[in-house]
Amino acid sequence: MSAEDISAAYAAGLCELRTLLGARLSSSPSVRDQHGADPTGHFKAAPDAVAFATSTTEVSAITCICSAHKMPIIPYGCGTSLEGQVAAVHGGVCIDLSGMNQMVELNSSDLDCRVEAGVTLRKLNESIRQDGLFFPVDPGADASLGGMAATRASGTNAVRYGTMSHNVLGLTVVLASGAIIRTGTRARKSAAGYDLTRLFVGSEGTLGVITEVQLKLYPFPSSISAAVSSFSSLRGAVDTVLQTLHCGVPIARIELLDEVLMEAVNRRGTINYPALPTLFFEFQGTTQSVEEQVQIVGDLVRENGGAQFEWALLPEERTRLWRARHEAFWAARDLRPGCTPIATDVCVPISSLTECVLETKNDIQELPFPAPVTGHVGDGNFHVLLLMDAGSPSEAAAAESFNRRLIERAHRYGGTCTGEHGVGLGKIDYLEWEAGSSLSCMRAIKAALDPDGILNPGKIFRT
Amino acid sequence: MSAEDISAAYAAGLCELRTLLGARLSSSPSVRDQHGADPTGHFKAAPDAVAFATSTTEVSAITCICSAHKMPIIPYGCGTSLEGQVAAVHGGVCIDLSGMNQMVELNSSDLDCRVEAGVTLRKLNESIRQDGLFFPVDPGADASLGGMAATRASGTNAVRYGTMSHNVLGLTVVLASGAIIRTGTRARKSAAGYDLTRLFVGSEGTLGVITEVQLKLYPFPSSISAAVSSFSSLRGAVDTVLQTLHCGVPIARIELLDEVLMEAVNRRGTINYPALPTLFFEFQGTTQSVEEQVQIVGDLVRENGGAQFEWALLPEERTRLWRARHEAFWAARDLRPGCTPIATDVCVPISSLTECVLETKNDIQELPFPAPVTGHVGDGNFHVLLLMDAGSPSEAAAAESFNRRLIERAHRYGGTCTGEHGVGLGKIDYLEWEAGSSLSCMRAIKAALDPDGILNPGKIFRT
Repeated sequence: MSAEDISAAYAAGLCELRTLLGARLSSSPSVRDQHGADPTGHFKAAPDAVAFATSTTEVSAITCICSAHKMPIIPYGCGTSLEGQVAAVHGGVCIDLSGMNQMVELNSSDLDCRVEAGVTLRKLNESIRQDGLFFPVDPGADASLGGMAATRASGTNAVRYGTMSHNVLGLTVVLASGAIIRTGTRARKSAAGYDLTRLFVGSEGTLGVITEVQLKLYPFPSSISAAVSSFSSLRGAVDTVLQTLHCGVPIARIELLDEVLMEAVNRRGTINYPALPTLFFEFQGTTQSVEEQVQIVGDLVRENGGAQFEWALLPEERTRLWRARHEAFWAARDLRPGCTPIATDVCVPISSLTECVLETKNDIQELPFPAPVTGHVGDGNFHVLLLMDAGSPSEAAAAESFNRRLIERAHRYGGTCTGEHGVGLGKIDYLEWEAGSSLSCMRAIKAALDPDGILNPGKIFRT
Repeated sequence: MSAEDISAAYAAGLCELRTLLGARLSSSPSVRDQHGADPTGHFKAAPDAVAFATSTTEVSAITCICSAHKMPIIPYGCGTSLEGQVAAVHGGVCIDLSGMNQMVELNSSDLDCRVEAGVTLRKLNESIRQDGLFFPVDPGADASLGGMAATRASGTNAVRYGTMSHNVLGLTVVLASGAIIRTGTRARKSAAGYDLTRLFVGSEGTLGVITEVQLKLYPFPSSISAAVSSFSSLRGAVDTVLQTLHCGVPIARIELLDEVLMEAVNRRGTINYPALPTLFFEFQGTTQSVEEQVQIVGDLVRENGGAQFEWALLPEERTRLWRARHEAFWAARDLRPGCTPIATDVCVPISSLTECVLETKNDIQELPFPAPVTGHVGDGNFHVLLLMDAGSPSEAAAAESFNRRLIERAHRYGGTCTGEHGVGLGKIDYLEWEAGSSLSCMRAIKAALDPDGILNPGKIFRT
């Protein structure tokens, strides 16, 4: 169908949605464009309308209308996903959940809470700080908890606290039919039937619309310490990571930035370290346990040729360090103003990380644009930031073939094409390689739960 | 169909299986009876034959034959499940995987391994000990890793290391069609499509036959210490657990035995402690970190009226303590020789644990048989061992109504009807209560992946 045909087919449905939502259904081109684009600017497809939902019941009502008219639904939290998850490639209605931003319940004694899907990570952590609690999953962006659940987000703390898969106790989900289901309970574990919670976590809006999330929380550690260390070689840095894990040190974060990225980060002025492969560490625990972790890792750093094991014991120093780390994406972009970066996202078994990153660094030499490397190396997950000019077909082709080689390499080492960004539009072909015959199993589940294919169509699988 | 009709309908299929497997297909009544019964003796339904499989390819061939004849398949590891998961209630073929007992690969640098489904927990841990590694999930019985994955097992270490859900990286599964799929990769995390691994973990053989399991392993802690403490009140014991978790102490095990069970355990002679509510602790980490954990928890024990915080620093003392803990089920049974115990299995939010256990203890007063209580209290999971006489209809009725009240109570507190034993036959009605409208979602997945309903029929759902 052409774009006009699509809009015509959906006219009746949109009319019903207008009656239901009034001004909370927007057809404004700027609102639609903004909701169909990701932050990197690579994927753009505006929905026919944006519905600003305020409750699970309302999401259900919207879904019933969309279902009756076989009109696509694209759930939207903060729009920070990186693989085109929010692009409305088949038109339809974007359901913006950002207005559903309330804490439903906080059970501090049980170290859990239930939030509406639109609550952002920062807001959540601000609202539980006074209870001495925090939520550890930290993808970098101030994403919504619903979006983080839908894309199985992880980030810097995953080496210690796991990903969203480990930290979601249950969900409220609106199915394609409009039916509202609750998965999981408030118990910390359960063996009661299929693990629907973990099926919806990472399903990227293709099996249902997540409207509430029950989360595990953690007591704020009594002591936190951060450190930075530069290495003359990448191998020394990565070997330090491996040995740290083998010593059973319960490290909270262990992040790599290569020399190119360190130079970019330095330019922003927040920190100033040598332009060398660098590890950022964070240790959490009791004072005594943190001191012990620091001593063990300090020894490993020295043994592996690391220098400048600089301490940041004060909260403001730590904040500065981690701000620098989180700004790395933007710092990288400044290396080539006007570029449209692609963040690749492979994850490999940790013992292959050094070889995989070194081969990748060699491959980067052939690229016609800068490509710094960063990684959540404790998990074996790393990103190459391809600072390409989207207007240049030759650069786009070079980026695409580089990414393909990178993923082939990750698969060769027993890894995955996406550690944390998800499949969306960008990794559909690579998921096919990786999943092999298990893809038919995924497709069967999709067909069973969304027989008309209205839930975020065109994502994860080609439709 | 009557039993004779079933056997007749399956005669052609069984004949084909005989050609495929020769002597490795057994129709011996004793073999069939043994494979259709669980260790408690509550659930008994012999399959028509038992196939002793030796490879994934062979499981696939068996499944193809069963599929062609719409003949049920019941996967079998060690037969230690407690809710009738192995009972062949619709007849068919039990696939015994105990012969598939090889380590497929051990990647000690990456802290992972791949085992065939029939490898038992003890064998796994023996074979990786020399590499300084261990696998922490410990359900008590020496179960097979395939069975533990299939039932989402957990046990004493889950408070620190999580359940099978957290420790399985990937699976090889034979689907109802006979197709062989691999889920997951060797990467520590992935956002590549639906999390099929966690869908099969806990599916109790109803979605596919698990033939290989990729597992996370852990470095053996440099220091381990165990302790036992008696409390004058149950409340004091459970409050100690709550406060330990709130202090962020990374405790490895924290187990409760009530005064009735302590008396039973004492009678076996392995240990001798007061017949009072008792906590068993295990601390793991570096020497310094263990000392610190011990100090924090020791203080909490004293504050909550605990006494006899007895240490077991030597491995043989620890082994003795944990042997006593693991023998608790058998010790309980000795309280009433000839009884047929039922192990209930609720799990509640930790802050409700005291109230829920106290209400349950009151309820136990009304029972016509002894019913000691034990629990993995760090997770909020506890078991009442109902030492009933299976030959007495009134005791059976009392046990059933007690279990129903217990589960209602757990649901009232936001908990689950099964923390770790699974649904099998015993919890089908309770899963319906708990899952509510999400049950239709589970049924849709079952129908999509097993359209003829040949995989462990009658389990999880009534068929």
